[in-house]
Amino acid sequence: MRILESAGPGGTLAVVFETGDAVMAGLRELARSRSLAGAHFTAIGAFQRATIAYFDWTSKRYEEIPIEENVEVAPMVGNIGATSEGEVIVHAHCTLGRRDGSTLAGHLVEATVRPTLELFVRADCPPLVRRLDEESGLFLIRQC
Amino acid sequence: MRILESAGPGGTLAVVFETGDAVMAGLRELARSRSLAGAHFTAIGAFQRATIAYFDWTSKRYEEIPIEENVEVAPMVGNIGATSEGEVIVHAHCTLGRRDGSTLAGHLVEATVRPTLELFVRADCPPLVRRLDEESGLFLIRQC
Amino acid sequence: MRILESAGPGGTLAVVFETGDAVMAGLRELARSRSLAGAHFTAIGAFQRATIAYFDWTSKRYEEIPIEENVEVAPMVGNIGATSEGEVIVHAHCTLGRRDGSTLAGHLVEATVRPTLELFVRADCPPLVRRLDEESGLFLIRQC
Repeated sequence: MRILESAGPGGTLAVVFETGDAVMAGLRELARSRSLAGAHFTAIGAFQRATIAYFDWTSKRYEEIPIEENVEVAPMVGNIGATSEGEVIVHAHCTLGRRDGSTLAGHLVEATVRPTLELFVRADCPPLVRRLDEESGLFLIRQC
Repeated sequence: MRILESAGPGGTLAVVFETGDAVMAGLRELARSRSLAGAHFTAIGAFQRATIAYFDWTSKRYEEIPIEENVEVAPMVGNIGATSEGEVIVHAHCTLGRRDGSTLAGHLVEATVRPTLELFVRADCPPLVRRLDEESGLFLIRQC
Repeated sequence: MRILESAGPGGTLAVVFETGDAVMAGLRELARSRSLAGAHFTAIGAFQRATIAYFDWTSKRYEEIPIEENVEVAPMVGNIGATSEGEVIVHAHCTLGRRDGSTLAGHLVEATVRPTLELFVRADCPPLVRRLDEESGLFLIRQC
């Protein structure tokens, strides 16, 4: 994962992942090292494998969907915040394109890049503080 | 729908929708209350139901596709402008992920959130003025 | 293709394509005429035809998927950079929605618009310099 700095203040940060990089772990590391309290991003590229998930409202649990093939990321969109205790939470969803152009989409659990993921971060959001939502059991953005 | 303000000028606005919120109505309300003349946004989250549509070029009509299940929003992308008479127009498209990871995508007519939609707005676009396009019958962005 | 300028410095550029416009050729023209060294964008709208592609890791070649029908763009995301020799490279992925809401996604080779594509460019990225990656045979963003 390489971080390309913008020349001016307030610019967009480019983050380039390479083959073998774990995307979600990399983004959490980025958030901690840069003290990102509120950011959002878009990305394109390809994964060699990924796990996406669907949140089942009845059971209040994520059902995982493992993907064991190279897929185009078209696109991945997400944001970076933290719990009120300061634990970084990266939330991302993606649509993935398969060899025949068919697609899979959902909540991104983790993914391994091959050969690149080109991600653009804007860190000029308000702080995104997540708190446990009793109804869903999820940490949702609840107040500034 | 909660609006989280950015600390500095020119920053990104975070808009967090909650269970039961109507997305398109909420965005039109946001546009009016903030006098947004030109803005664009990205969002992720989940809908409990939605109506998307496909524009049929032969009939020049939108064909609606109702979705009566909880779906992951992966992602939703759109913009905010107005007609030359000042009527707010929010234009959004989305890809939605189902329980098995399969997807549906199109023009977003309306959607109800469950449990959250995390939307990031940049309001630093030029004014997006929409005028009736005779050929398509749609209000398209035609000039500043 | 019409370019709507933002009033203030550092704002978002709106680029509106019309029926018959070639998207990738138009974006390369935009990059050259504006000397965009590092930019990223999101877009929604519709194509009357498109060619997307899947990068096959075994052969290291793109396999093209031609699409000969009007599709909703939901969304298209990408970035603008150049090789170290100064050749502009636009890299874009998209998810496309068909009449029944089913989808196709991948690397965008070229597309023809109908009736509109509304694209928002932020040109405040660091320079995105692409170099030939020996392993993949692709021009990847390698350093600032």
